[in-house]
Amino acid sequence: MNSELDPAFRAFNFSAGPAILPESVLLEAQEHLLSYQGSGMSIMEQSHRGRDYGAIHEEAVSNVRKLLGLRDEYGVLFLQGGATAQFAMVPLNLLGPDQTADYTHSGAWASKAIKEAGVVGKVHIAADTSQDVPARVPDPGNLDVREDAAYLHITSNETISGAQWKAFPRSHVPLVADMSSDIFSRPLDIGQFGLIYAGAQKNLGPSGIALVVIRKDLVERAPESVPLFFRYKTHLEANSLYNTPPTFSIYLVCLVTRWLRHQGGLASIHKRNDEKSGKLYGAIDGSGFYRGTAEVHHRSTMNVTFRLPSEALEDSFLDAADKENLKGLKGHRSVGGIRASIYNAFPAEGVDALVDFMREFEKKNG
Amino acid sequence: MNSELDPAFRAFNFSAGPAILPESVLLEAQEHLLSYQGSGMSIMEQSHRGRDYGAIHEEAVSNVRKLLGLRDEYGVLFLQGGATAQFAMVPLNLLGPDQTADYTHSGAWASKAIKEAGVVGKVHIAADTSQDVPARVPDPGNLDVREDAAYLHITSNETISGAQWKAFPRSHVPLVADMSSDIFSRPLDIGQFGLIYAGAQKNLGPSGIALVVIRKDLVERAPESVPLFFRYKTHLEANSLYNTPPTFSIYLVCLVTRWLRHQGGLASIHKRNDEKSGKLYGAIDGSGFYRGTAEVHHRSTMNVTFRLPSEALEDSFLDAADKENLKGLKGHRSVGGIRASIYNAFPAEGVDALVDFMREFEKKNG
Repeated sequence: MNSELDPAFRAFNFSAGPAILPESVLLEAQEHLLSYQGSGMSIMEQSHRGRDYGAIHEEAVSNVRKLLGLRDEYGVLFLQGGATAQFAMVPLNLLGPDQTADYTHSGAWASKAIKEAGVVGKVHIAADTSQDVPARVPDPGNLDVREDAAYLHITSNETISGAQWKAFPRSHVPLVADMSSDIFSRPLDIGQFGLIYAGAQKNLGPSGIALVVIRKDLVERAPESVPLFFRYKTHLEANSLYNTPPTFSIYLVCLVTRWLRHQGGLASIHKRNDEKSGKLYGAIDGSGFYRGTAEVHHRSTMNVTFRLPSEALEDSFLDAADKENLKGLKGHRSVGGIRASIYNAFPAEGVDALVDFMREFEKKNG
Repeated sequence: MNSELDPAFRAFNFSAGPAILPESVLLEAQEHLLSYQGSGMSIMEQSHRGRDYGAIHEEAVSNVRKLLGLRDEYGVLFLQGGATAQFAMVPLNLLGPDQTADYTHSGAWASKAIKEAGVVGKVHIAADTSQDVPARVPDPGNLDVREDAAYLHITSNETISGAQWKAFPRSHVPLVADMSSDIFSRPLDIGQFGLIYAGAQKNLGPSGIALVVIRKDLVERAPESVPLFFRYKTHLEANSLYNTPPTFSIYLVCLVTRWLRHQGGLASIHKRNDEKSGKLYGAIDGSGFYRGTAEVHHRSTMNVTFRLPSEALEDSFLDAADKENLKGLKGHRSVGGIRASIYNAFPAEGVDALVDFMREFEKKNG
């Protein structure tokens, strides 16, 4: 098929992020791109204080609240700068000048959070699995969390290694989680957390927006030296409208969260994610050819990582997959191998296509 | 016309921001929304390290460099958080702990920049026209800039009052300008400036992205206490790819800056902006009914502000205009009156339509 000639052509997009969005969301955004609901203006051309955008903003917040079953004590924020801005905002807001923050170190993304927190204040490592092979995350029951820690930070899913927390620690200090790569992939007991955050570009929408859910009392912690724009309190009080928000990105988050609700919510999505990842891990384990790189009990439902017998075979695998419309399967440049990112929006047929392809490739090359 | 039935229907959109985008830009984005150049993926679903997005990112930077005629000593950054994030990043990066920053106070936007700088450090007001009636900006030759100021900050166009600097101060300290509402509306001698910044949502693209042009030596000033993510140096060294950038927003900035170049660049755009605003100010001055609110020599080419004899007449004016497809003309809620924002992408025919409407309205109500 010459894809250039077929505007409806869609690839099976296994990209780790920015990642695939539900096709129905893109179709709706496309239809309204020059005139939102007959207004004669794109939603991105309208005032963020206007009626059309106001309804979108409220629905996006409300969808998040409903998906997570949030009580009043939690606030929902849409902030710019992705998860990387949160690496700085979390310690700026929650870490007092003489306090220490506890972090678990589980891999590449945890390391970035730790590095930035170290610029702002003092950090203590509560557990370190970053060098473990196979890849794994710390045991939630075996963390060295100090009595007076300002908070405990974890990374719920390591996108690069494909290791994911299956249960979360019960902590005497506020638990903070970077959930960028598995937000809304499963039900969550939000009561365990003080703050969760997620860059949108894997499970929520386009890049350029981060979701923050924060227990409201925590916004009071920020020292007066923190610029107003970098205080959670500023954005909580303004319902994320302190300044012009990224309106088109929040519009897409609104459509994606609406889609998630139509899918039956997080329990239903979780079931689908288990099925999709189960098929892929089954194909890996059923072969003597492919080898999973994460510890079995810590395997991510979002990023399925595996190796072939040689790097040369991995290169042929990627080339052949690309020709079969299976895109974005190359592992992160820091670790190599194969990574199939199968976020919420990734269709089950794409997983089936990959499993078929893996069997064929093994037959020819095994 | 029943606009809901006509997907090609476009309003004359006078919104102050988020604001109108070139129709050709929206049409191109719409065509490629589900499959960018036959890739089977939206550009917002692709890796920011991939070939397709890489070419867009480079072109966006290159278009900015060419439009402004930048030499190597200046860097171009695309950052998140809009101009409001820059209100904090400028003093965080440029203002040492024992230094003072000089700001001109010209209205609502200057006041926000001043407030945030005051959280970070010490501020001295070099001139204050914020209460002047008619609205005006300071005289560039008559500023009280101190010898040891860290920098001098100005707001090149006050979106709310409609007052604009027509010439910029020659300063012995780095000149910093918030150009959110008139960036790329006229040629600029960038050599006069140490740093300029602009939220994109008026003249550059959608909300959620800010352009920063910085003289490279200034990035060395940031104290080590500033989080890595909030340092200009971090983003300059990474060519704005330190973290996942808002790829779709930068794609639109790429298309808008390409469009600006196709229009003949900034001299040509300036001529068009002078013609468009000239017609409107002519209509105001030629009537005994409408009254401009900014001082004649400081009148903005971007935001044309005026009053009618009474607030009741202003309300009828806005209602009647809306019915004629002239949208977004209400002045900012803090000042009232009428504001016609006619940024680069606003078509000349829309100005003609407003002028005709103003004449008719005056005939009936004058």
